[in-house]
Amino acid sequence: MRNILIIGAGKSCSYLIKYLLDHSESQHLKLTIGDLHVENAKKLIGTDVKADIIHLDVFDPESRSEAIKKADIIISMLPARFHIEVARDCIKFKKHMVTASYVSKEMQALDAEAKANNLIFMNEIGVDPGIDHMSAMQVIDRIRDKGGKMILFESFTGGLVAPESDTNLWNYKFTWNPRNVVVAGQGGAAKFLQEDQFKYISYNRLFRRTEFLDVENYGRFEAYANRDSLKYQNVYGLDHVKTLYRGTMRRVGFSRAWNAFVQLGMTDDSYTIDDSKNMSYRDFVNAFLPYSPTDSVELKFRHALKIDQDDMMWDKFLELDLFNPEKMVELDKGTPAQILQKILMDSWTLAKDDKDMIVMYHKFGYELNGKKHQIDATMVTLGQDQTYTAMAKTVGLPVAIATLAILNGDIKTPGVQIPITKEVYTPILKALEAYDIAFKEYEVPYLGYNPLNV
Amino acid sequence: MRNILIIGAGKSCSYLIKYLLDHSESQHLKLTIGDLHVENAKKLIGTDVKADIIHLDVFDPESRSEAIKKADIIISMLPARFHIEVARDCIKFKKHMVTASYVSKEMQALDAEAKANNLIFMNEIGVDPGIDHMSAMQVIDRIRDKGGKMILFESFTGGLVAPESDTNLWNYKFTWNPRNVVVAGQGGAAKFLQEDQFKYISYNRLFRRTEFLDVENYGRFEAYANRDSLKYQNVYGLDHVKTLYRGTMRRVGFSRAWNAFVQLGMTDDSYTIDDSKNMSYRDFVNAFLPYSPTDSVELKFRHALKIDQDDMMWDKFLELDLFNPEKMVELDKGTPAQILQKILMDSWTLAKDDKDMIVMYHKFGYELNGKKHQIDATMVTLGQDQTYTAMAKTVGLPVAIATLAILNGDIKTPGVQIPITKEVYTPILKALEAYDIAFKEYEVPYLGYNPLNV
Repeated sequence: MRNILIIGAGKSCSYLIKYLLDHSESQHLKLTIGDLHVENAKKLIGTDVKADIIHLDVFDPESRSEAIKKADIIISMLPARFHIEVARDCIKFKKHMVTASYVSKEMQALDAEAKANNLIFMNEIGVDPGIDHMSAMQVIDRIRDKGGKMILFESFTGGLVAPESDTNLWNYKFTWNPRNVVVAGQGGAAKFLQEDQFKYISYNRLFRRTEFLDVENYGRFEAYANRDSLKYQNVYGLDHVKTLYRGTMRRVGFSRAWNAFVQLGMTDDSYTIDDSKNMSYRDFVNAFLPYSPTDSVELKFRHALKIDQDDMMWDKFLELDLFNPEKMVELDKGTPAQILQKILMDSWTLAKDDKDMIVMYHKFGYELNGKKHQIDATMVTLGQDQTYTAMAKTVGLPVAIATLAILNGDIKTPGVQIPITKEVYTPILKALEAYDIAFKEYEVPYLGYNPLNV
Repeated sequence: MRNILIIGAGKSCSYLIKYLLDHSESQHLKLTIGDLHVENAKKLIGTDVKADIIHLDVFDPESRSEAIKKADIIISMLPARFHIEVARDCIKFKKHMVTASYVSKEMQALDAEAKANNLIFMNEIGVDPGIDHMSAMQVIDRIRDKGGKMILFESFTGGLVAPESDTNLWNYKFTWNPRNVVVAGQGGAAKFLQEDQFKYISYNRLFRRTEFLDVENYGRFEAYANRDSLKYQNVYGLDHVKTLYRGTMRRVGFSRAWNAFVQLGMTDDSYTIDDSKNMSYRDFVNAFLPYSPTDSVELKFRHALKIDQDDMMWDKFLELDLFNPEKMVELDKGTPAQILQKILMDSWTLAKDDKDMIVMYHKFGYELNGKKHQIDATMVTLGQDQTYTAMAKTVGLPVAIATLAILNGDIKTPGVQIPITKEVYTPILKALEAYDIAFKEYEVPYLGYNPLNV
């Protein structure tokens, strides 16, 4: 028997646990799930599950190391900032570790010790980061193996609502942490490369510099730039690429409307509004508009943002009931971002039967034998229900598959790492295909950003 | 003889020193000027001046306390963050102190000790803060003394170029720290009160929410909101006022054009551009615009900002030579704000004979015997040359006059304070009149923000 310890039984664990249980007999797995709240975990996971559910406080060194000692490999599904305590114990007790989170500095600092102890600390093996790394590197490696030279890489991901549940004018519902959606793009200019030129987009302009992406059978999407387009340039070996861009996908029209909130300062999370508790939604909107004893909040809003009366965008704001003088904000001393989130949650919370969707789109531009080529690759995964979501599937399955691959010795190379090597992505992408997580590739004419070669 | 020590002989000291020297015989003053760079100070002040110029390093406790011990009162003209070392010595050696800077927390913390030692620590006694406090409180007190109830207070200040030196399309030159102009308005939403409603303006919208102000003989100005309109609400006793607004004045049209830099992110000071050294001005602008192999930077700029070809604003950008492919940024790893500042300094640096101008505009709304009234008060001061600037005059004279008033016992109340009491502002405003720093008052119909009382 091989003992697997999962720490933190959050929403994204449904597929992870199901996969490991489905393979527990054939693979001789014993599953232990540790959480601060045993009851919550039981409710979430179900009591019929063949796994031990134990109380585990990650900040209590005794119960933590006790549980870690007994396992062969540890999966930490805790919020990213809590991994490090687990990781240090994994070094101490010589256990492998898997997380879906970005590698923190503290985690990276354990690399030498992990290697010295022949331990694999696999990180960023969810969907984004995770499937994006693996699917991109598989194509990049293939291009290089046949002698091609990468000149362009663009990568886009969206966590959206499935078409059958897409019932509002924004074509958007919260399928993940709503707060991250409200403050997305804040904290610094987006930076990327276009045809060898560094480009910067301020937060003010971020949602007005979108580009379109068409996905077979799913229609048109738009994408706005991530802050960190250059983050993996070196890691992917793309140092001499001309164009490098990473973005977030939405349905067309979302960003243009969202920009209204950005412009008025309604996404600001840096200060609180003293009297927010007694504000109506209408009062909240009005706080960002000039005083007038006569003009309506509606007209001031349209005027400030230059929204024509017959602009379809206007209906999006009406749909949110943004100008309702009866609905109260209720939050005490909320930031604008918190209040906006509350208003949006009225409209964008998934209904019981709603399904989510993960969409990914890569563009690979390369030169081979003096000619330019482009491969576009797309992936769409739909959720099944509100437990077995597309998000939980695309995060949990790569984690589960990687865990087995480590236990079985298919992944051997030790150290703190992310899934960008053939050894790692080949078995995992292969296994994901059986779960309908697969990319469709299209050979398209190379467009780049300079189609005429001017 | 009374010994006055001035620490820090910066640009704003010309009038301060002249005033004290002009009064040295009649008032029995002995002046000592301490600076880190004696030679620089001598150059700035002139060697013919009847004052001792001594080497003083504010971080060297020995030379600092040595100089402070010998004086009866200390004027610190250092950058605000350096006052506190001086202030602590002033407590220790029981000396009065005067600064033109905002009261820091550390300074405020000395209040009890200052009072216990019967010492006056007068702060914020320059122009803004300084003359604004005094001139506002004089009118507010007068309104209250006759039984009026304040309902509106708005206050605007501008450091601008004098009309005779106003030679560019922006009607603006740098008469003070250019950096502060470039990053003005950043770091949080502007907050103010209009007719009992709190209003918030995001940085994105700050330069599009200006209002106009007409000043007799000087024409029309515009003003954008300061971040801290409510800062003095309590201090001025305006807790129940309906409208409270503080703003910065520019010539009409400045803000609309400046907004282009804000929108594109060219005023961002939070990140550096790696290759800025080898960038032309044109490259710099282009970094904030989408890549195109064919379209000009000019057209992309106009398109992004929706500037019509015949919009006069366009000429403002051309005047800055913003699209010049030959002029180099030269700064190594500059932030966008630093690079923009460098470009602006080409055009907005005062020429040798240029004169500056300080403009102040207050609006006081009040109720008296059931009727609403309004007083507008304006002040304009012109510079004489680049040494005797309006800025140096309006900062330095109140400091000098306050210093004498403290020495002569006209100001008696001890403690860490700002000039908002009759005891302080009456003698100082009176003395300033002789130097043509005086407010014109106008009784105007009360407008407020709700003229129809809807």
